[in-house]
Amino acid sequence: MASQTVLTPQADDFPRWYQDVVAKAEMADNGPVRGTMVIRPYGYAIWERIQSAVDARIKQAGAQNAYFPLFIPQSYFEREAKHVEGFSPELAVVTYAGGEELAEPVVVRPTSETVIGEFMAKWIQSYRDLPLLLNQWANVVRWELRPRLFLRSSEFLWQEGHTAHASFEDAAAYARMIHAEVYDDFLEKVMAIPSYLGIKPASERFAGAINSMTAEGMMRDGKALQLATSHELGQNFAKAFDIYFQNEEGQAELCYTTSWGSSTRYVGGLIMAHGDDNGLVLPPQLAPTQAVVVAVRDEADVNDACARVARDLTAAGVRVVVDRGRGSFGRRITDWEIKGVPLRIEVGPRDLAQGVVSVVRRDNGEKLTLPLDSLRQHAIEMLDAMQSNMLEAALKFRDGATYDVKTVGEAIEAAQEGFARLSWDSVGPHGEAVLKTDAITVRCLQRADGSMPDSDTEKNLVCIVAKSY
Amino acid sequence: MASQTVLTPQADDFPRWYQDVVAKAEMADNGPVRGTMVIRPYGYAIWERIQSAVDARIKQAGAQNAYFPLFIPQSYFEREAKHVEGFSPELAVVTYAGGEELAEPVVVRPTSETVIGEFMAKWIQSYRDLPLLLNQWANVVRWELRPRLFLRSSEFLWQEGHTAHASFEDAAAYARMIHAEVYDDFLEKVMAIPSYLGIKPASERFAGAINSMTAEGMMRDGKALQLATSHELGQNFAKAFDIYFQNEEGQAELCYTTSWGSSTRYVGGLIMAHGDDNGLVLPPQLAPTQAVVVAVRDEADVNDACARVARDLTAAGVRVVVDRGRGSFGRRITDWEIKGVPLRIEVGPRDLAQGVVSVVRRDNGEKLTLPLDSLRQHAIEMLDAMQSNMLEAALKFRDGATYDVKTVGEAIEAAQEGFARLSWDSVGPHGEAVLKTDAITVRCLQRADGSMPDSDTEKNLVCIVAKSY
Repeated sequence: MASQTVLTPQADDFPRWYQDVVAKAEMADNGPVRGTMVIRPYGYAIWERIQSAVDARIKQAGAQNAYFPLFIPQSYFEREAKHVEGFSPELAVVTYAGGEELAEPVVVRPTSETVIGEFMAKWIQSYRDLPLLLNQWANVVRWELRPRLFLRSSEFLWQEGHTAHASFEDAAAYARMIHAEVYDDFLEKVMAIPSYLGIKPASERFAGAINSMTAEGMMRDGKALQLATSHELGQNFAKAFDIYFQNEEGQAELCYTTSWGSSTRYVGGLIMAHGDDNGLVLPPQLAPTQAVVVAVRDEADVNDACARVARDLTAAGVRVVVDRGRGSFGRRITDWEIKGVPLRIEVGPRDLAQGVVSVVRRDNGEKLTLPLDSLRQHAIEMLDAMQSNMLEAALKFRDGATYDVKTVGEAIEAAQEGFARLSWDSVGPHGEAVLKTDAITVRCLQRADGSMPDSDTEKNLVCIVAKSY
Repeated sequence: MASQTVLTPQADDFPRWYQDVVAKAEMADNGPVRGTMVIRPYGYAIWERIQSAVDARIKQAGAQNAYFPLFIPQSYFEREAKHVEGFSPELAVVTYAGGEELAEPVVVRPTSETVIGEFMAKWIQSYRDLPLLLNQWANVVRWELRPRLFLRSSEFLWQEGHTAHASFEDAAAYARMIHAEVYDDFLEKVMAIPSYLGIKPASERFAGAINSMTAEGMMRDGKALQLATSHELGQNFAKAFDIYFQNEEGQAELCYTTSWGSSTRYVGGLIMAHGDDNGLVLPPQLAPTQAVVVAVRDEADVNDACARVARDLTAAGVRVVVDRGRGSFGRRITDWEIKGVPLRIEVGPRDLAQGVVSVVRRDNGEKLTLPLDSLRQHAIEMLDAMQSNMLEAALKFRDGATYDVKTVGEAIEAAQEGFARLSWDSVGPHGEAVLKTDAITVRCLQRADGSMPDSDTEKNLVCIVAKSY
C-alpha cells in the first residue's frame, strides 16, 4: 500500500513513527499550554471503550465510583513526608481565584490519596464500614518537562482506586486482586497486550507506598511501558489523615489503605504494542469501528450493496461504518489502515456481479474473497481470530525479545533491543545505578516462575530490566 | 414513617430540607477547598445514569466526544471582550507550576469556547468539514462565593457541546435541535421534569452569545432552576479565533458557532423537583436501585426468599438490591425512603407462608399485597406507572403554580410562591430592574403558545418570571 510515504517507518525512527500515527490517525494534538493534550474524537472513542472495559472490571471487584475535588489544600500534601517529596516538583498551584489572592494556595491534584484520605477518616466509623472501596475517573496534573502525547502529558485522564481495610493482609490481597483481575485481565483480553506483572524495586515505588506493583508491556521497539500500578500504602496515609476504625472489641485501630491507577497512557501503549508501518492496528474488542465497508466506486448499486452489508453486520453486533466511494480509492484505503480498523470490506461492481466481496484483515494483511451470503459469519469469525492472534503475536514478540542474562553488563547489551531478565541479587541498588547511566531501569521484580512475590525482600527473585517510556 | 424526625420538613425550611437530603442520602459532602464538592457513591451513581442518558442523545444528534485541556492561556480569554468580562470574576488562575513561576498564568477552564475555538480554526479547512460537532465531559471551575452542593459549586462536572457551521441558519437550527432533542427529551422522559423552554433576555445571556436558550424547571418550593442552556454564538468566537472555512466558491468565510451545556446541577434539580418530607423520590429510569427487597427479619427462609425475588427481578432487567434483615426494620425502611428507591418489596415470614409480599411505591406511598408468582410482572408495571405518574404530577404542580398576570407588581406577588407569566412588553429592561430588587428574574421568553421564539426581539412574547437558584 501507499502508506509508506505517509508515515515514517518504525525502523527509521520509532518516536517519529509514533508522532506520525498520533497525528495522521487524528488521535491527539498538543494543547496550547506546555505538555497539555487535546484528545481528538478518534482517540477519545478508543478511550471510551477502554474506560468502559476497565470500569466494568472495577465494579465487578466491588469498588464504587465517586468524585473528589480537583483542588487540594497545599497543607494536605505536607502531612505525608515521602508523598510531598515525590510530588512537589510536579505540582501546579492556584494562587489567585475569584478576583483575589488565596490565603492558602491550592494544588491541582496530581493524585488523590490525600483528599480521599481526609474523607475516609470522616466516613469510616467501625469495622462494619470496611473495606471501603472507592474509585474515581478524573483528570490529574503533573507538570511535565518532556511531554509526549498519551505517554507523558501535564494533564491526563485516569482512574484512581482508593481503598481502606481492617488488616494488612486484606489490603495486600485486594491490591493484588485488582492488579490481576482488573488490570492484567483487561490488558490481556481487551488490549491484547501481555505484560510482566511484578513489584517495583524500592527506588521506583510510588511516593508514600510500602509496595508498588506494576504491569509492564513491551512496545514494538523493545522498550517497556508501565501500563498500570497498584500500591499498598500500609498505614502511612492512615496515620497522616487519622483514618481509624473501631474494631470488634471497641478499640480504635488505624486502617491499611491501597491505591491503584491506570490512564490515557493505555492509548499510547495500544499504538506502540501493535502498530506497524501502515499505522494503528486495533484489537477488535477495542476498535470503535470494527469493520469499514468501502465502496470501490461512487455508484448507486455499489453504495446500496455497502448499506446492505453494513445493516447485516450491525444486526450481528459488529460496529460498522460505510465509506461511500468519493475520492481516491487508494487514499481512502490508506486512511483506514492508519486508523487500524480490523476488517476492511471492499465492495466493487465486478465482484458484486459475482455475489462476492473482498475482505482484508488489518493485522496480517490476509485478503479473502467471500460470498456475500456468508460474509456475516466469516466477519465474526475473523474478528475473533484477530483478537486472539494479536495477543499471541504480541506474546511471541515479547518472549522473543526477553533475554535471560547473568550480569548487569549483559543486561545493558540486551536492553538495547529488548528486555533482560536476571537474578535480582546480581543487580541490587548498585546495579540499578550502573543501569541508569545507560537510561535503563529495573522494571519489576518477579519470582523465577514469573509470579508476583509477596515483597521485594523475598529470596531468589529475578528482575526485568529495560529502557522505558 | 419515622423519617419526620430525620429530615427538616420542606414547609419549615426548604433549603435546610435540601441539605438534609444531600447529607442523609449520602449524595455529597463539602470539599476542603471553599465551594468544592465531594460526590459520594450514591450521588455519583445517579450522575452516571444521567451521563449515560444524555450522552446517548448527544451521539444520536451526531456530535462526537473529545477532550480539551483543563488549562487555558489567560490571553485566550481576552480575545472575546464580553467573554472575558463575564468570566473574569470567577476564574481560578495557576501562577506556579513545576517548581517555578509561569511566564504566562494559565486559567483553569470555566468553559471551553476559547480553547476549542483555537482547534476548530486548525481543523476546519473547507465547507466539507462542516458542521463540526463536538462534545466533552469534563470538570470546570467557577469560583463561587455562595456555594451549594450540586447547584453552585466552585468545581462541577458537565458536558459542553461546541459546534461550527457554514451558516447562521444551520447553527441556529442545530442549537435548537439539541435543546429540544437532547435536553428537553432527557428532562421529560428520564428525569420526569417538565421545563419551560425559551430564550434568555439579553441581560441573562451567556458571555459572548448572541442568543441563549434555557430549560427552566420548577422546584417544589416554587423557585426556578436553570437545567440546561444552548447558545448561538454568531461569529463572535469565530472572529476571535479565526475560525474560517473555504466555501464552495473557494472563498474564505467565517463560521457560525454554538455551545450548549448541562451539569451535575441536574442532581440538585432531581432532588428539589421530586423530593418530599421523607427524602428523595427517584424516577425509575434514573434510579441506580429500582427496587429494594427488604427482609423483615434476619431468618434463613426470609433471606432465601429475598434472594429468589431479587434473582427473578434482575432477570427481568430491574436493578435490585437485597437488604438482609439486620438491624431495626423501621430504621432500614427510613433509609431506603430517604434514598428514594422507587419500589420497596417487604418480605416477612407471615406473608411468605401465604405466598405473598408487600410492595410499596415511593412516589405515592401505595402499598399492595402481591402474590410472589406474579410479582415480576407487577413490579415492571409499577415502575412504568411511577415514571409516567411522576412526570404528570410534576406537570400538574408546575402548571398549578404558574400564574398568568398583567403587571410587574402582580408578578412579584405571584413569584413569592411560584412562576408568573406575563407579556414581555409589560416588563422590559425597566421591569427586570424592579423585579431584581425582590431577587426575581425573567427566566425566559416564549411565544404565547409556549413555543421557542426565533429571537428575543420577536413581537408579542411572554416571559416567565420567578425566584431562582
